[in-house]
Amino acid sequence: MRVALDAMGGDRAPGIIVEGAIQALREYRDLEVILVGDEKKVKRELSKYRIKGLPLSIIHASQVVEMDELPTSALREKKDSSIMVAARLVKERKAQAIVSAGNTGAAMVATKVVLGTLEGIERPAIAILTPHIYGVSILTDVGANVDCKPQHLLQFAIMGNTYAKEILRIEKPKVGLLSVGKEKIKGNELTKATYDLLAKTSLNFIGNVEGRDIFNGSVDVIVCDGFIGNIVLKTGESLAETMQGMLKKEITKNFLRKLGALLSMGAYRALKKRFDYSEYGGAPLLGINGVCIITHGGAPTLAIKNALRVAGEFINHKVNAHIIEAVKREKI
Amino acid sequence: MRVALDAMGGDRAPGIIVEGAIQALREYRDLEVILVGDEKKVKRELSKYRIKGLPLSIIHASQVVEMDELPTSALREKKDSSIMVAARLVKERKAQAIVSAGNTGAAMVATKVVLGTLEGIERPAIAILTPHIYGVSILTDVGANVDCKPQHLLQFAIMGNTYAKEILRIEKPKVGLLSVGKEKIKGNELTKATYDLLAKTSLNFIGNVEGRDIFNGSVDVIVCDGFIGNIVLKTGESLAETMQGMLKKEITKNFLRKLGALLSMGAYRALKKRFDYSEYGGAPLLGINGVCIITHGGAPTLAIKNALRVAGEFINHKVNAHIIEAVKREKI
Repeated sequence: MRVALDAMGGDRAPGIIVEGAIQALREYRDLEVILVGDEKKVKRELSKYRIKGLPLSIIHASQVVEMDELPTSALREKKDSSIMVAARLVKERKAQAIVSAGNTGAAMVATKVVLGTLEGIERPAIAILTPHIYGVSILTDVGANVDCKPQHLLQFAIMGNTYAKEILRIEKPKVGLLSVGKEKIKGNELTKATYDLLAKTSLNFIGNVEGRDIFNGSVDVIVCDGFIGNIVLKTGESLAETMQGMLKKEITKNFLRKLGALLSMGAYRALKKRFDYSEYGGAPLLGINGVCIITHGGAPTLAIKNALRVAGEFINHKVNAHIIEAVKREKI
Repeated sequence: MRVALDAMGGDRAPGIIVEGAIQALREYRDLEVILVGDEKKVKRELSKYRIKGLPLSIIHASQVVEMDELPTSALREKKDSSIMVAARLVKERKAQAIVSAGNTGAAMVATKVVLGTLEGIERPAIAILTPHIYGVSILTDVGANVDCKPQHLLQFAIMGNTYAKEILRIEKPKVGLLSVGKEKIKGNELTKATYDLLAKTSLNFIGNVEGRDIFNGSVDVIVCDGFIGNIVLKTGESLAETMQGMLKKEITKNFLRKLGALLSMGAYRALKKRFDYSEYGGAPLLGINGVCIITHGGAPTLAIKNALRVAGEFINHKVNAHIIEAVKREKI
């Protein structure tokens, strides 16, 4: 498994990225990493570690798409940016996957332009794992597509279902459509039309699900357009952080509370870990003709390491081949 | 201040409703309550309390719209339902406000049909208070309108702004448009068109806000369509509950943790209270020509009491007159 890692993407690149790569290479035996970025800077970071014997190489890229740049214009001007070079490595079969903590929009546009989409898929979708009371569920799309048509949501559902089956090993994933009520008639024009399409598939479609179902474990794959998905994702992340912050503030208000918190520290740590998105590795860009895993711009080392693991799993389990089969099976 | 209280609405009506009314009447001096519903059942509940001297009356309504009924057809068939009778009391100036924990859709349709909307307002919107790290912000619409046009969102913004000024006493509320990025160009077709309209108003429009801004206190009024708002609301409520449940589970895993939790109990209670929607009273249906405050179907006594308080505040502060003025000022 050879992964092209965007060494320049993210708020703390290339330091954190290189560190994550080394940790992953030490832990995952079959992994090879190509660090794509400014050779000088990457080498300087590498010099901090003992890397002898690790399957690691560098491919130079002279440009970087910054986090706040507009993807389309940035990529037009920066043909030698790390994300473009990484995408071309996959195109030329010199790598099987891309991992990037850089500008999400740029990763999407670069992979879509260079690699194209899978047969039967019009638009790629970002899928994230979101913790619920018993485990995790998949939420897709969380940002790639803001204005969608029913057939796009149908394609997201099929791809999310394949992800759940092949990577999460759920035999018959429960697929739900994010809406404002359980009943078929509840929703907006987009979800009502999508409902009818999903009901005709061979998926285990359980109908509409609501915001509250995201965390109660009643659904494995939650389908929505990227506008809603992005807002739900950021709302959830932020609320989890805010609650933890408020609890911390309350708990340090007096001595007894502090002592109590110290004794039950393990419980807080466990909760924090459950809601730490870094634990889950990156989010796949489903539907790209190639594997691309993206992570937060502020992703820590652990997230980069886990994203490399997830990239390996997508290659190993041939997720893309399974998506193509699934789309054909549903005759869409 | 005379409020028509839907005594039959909600999962535990009329028991909880009557109890909430009595608590409110004992605490808020200027309040008068008309209990609207099955006279026999309401009287049976009232017989459990000492109510002598409380400004309380009953108006009989022979029917109830159930929680899972379709609003439009239910109201067509149930002209004598408690919510319809309550709306007519406001129409006939026998009451100034309605409070209902019943079917939200039915409350919306009944008030809209019987009372109509305020001058310049095409669609009423539900506005809720949502806790953030320093206080509360207003999120609107959270469910009344699934498919919206830009001018509807503009009207929601004006109404939310008036709510923040008159009830929350914020002098120049920061109004934000819920989207997927700060930049003007980020968003879907609806938000991009709405952005341009909001920028032309005299509101303190701070531009797009993201899911993460709901809880960080950076915005006072968050504007979105009812589909998104409803999903965000339910996601938030459910995540808060789930995190509290997970923490409880972790904390009872061993003796030391339990002891610790006992010592810092005050901190948990404070957090729970901050995220308990019952504390904030009901949600106003903004834009109705009359005051209507709705609450959760499962609302406890405290929520009913607080909803009656909020109804009183809306009457006292003449929120509707201020909305009409504000709409005129913006020349929409």
